[in-house]
Amino acid sequence: MEDPVAKFMDVHSGFVGVTAKQLEEAHGRDLAIEADEGVHFERAWLDPEAGKVFCLATGPSKEAIMRIHERAGHPTGEVYELPIEV
Amino acid sequence: MEDPVAKFMDVHSGFVGVTAKQLEEAHGRDLAIEADEGVHFERAWLDPEAGKVFCLATGPSKEAIMRIHERAGHPTGEVYELPIEV
Repeated sequence: MEDPVAKFMDVHSGFVGVTAKQLEEAHGRDLAIEADEGVHFERAWLDPEAGKVFCLATGPSKEAIMRIHERAGHPTGEVYELPIEV
Repeated sequence: MEDPVAKFMDVHSGFVGVTAKQLEEAHGRDLAIEADEGVHFERAWLDPEAGKVFCLATGPSKEAIMRIHERAGHPTGEVYELPIEV
């Protein structure tokens, strides 16, 4: 079942040493095309030492999130749907 | 260097099938003792199918976060410091 307002966290690895400017550019590439899939990337957090990025997004499905990230040049298969939040 | 307002994401695995009520209880156990370490757990998101929990927190260090989670009964070694956010 696809919920139009489902929430997702996706995780990217390999972003060691990435700067705030580079993250902003990468995030901007998502924002530029996210409407094509009804997705919205709300926020992204980076640990530049571990090279991990966490993106919080809303959208219709995991696959929609993955398609936007892939087209934006930073594919990930690690996307979690978050029906429960406290 | 320990920044008193550093931000962290920690990840827990093995929470398959956990309910909203159970997550709230687990989160409540963190909140009840977090002040001991100058930590604050802002939010937690759960994917009950994958069994993943993501907690966003502020505090003085990764170790402080880990100590609270361990005392609350859900230890994790996977804590990321997030100096960059977009």
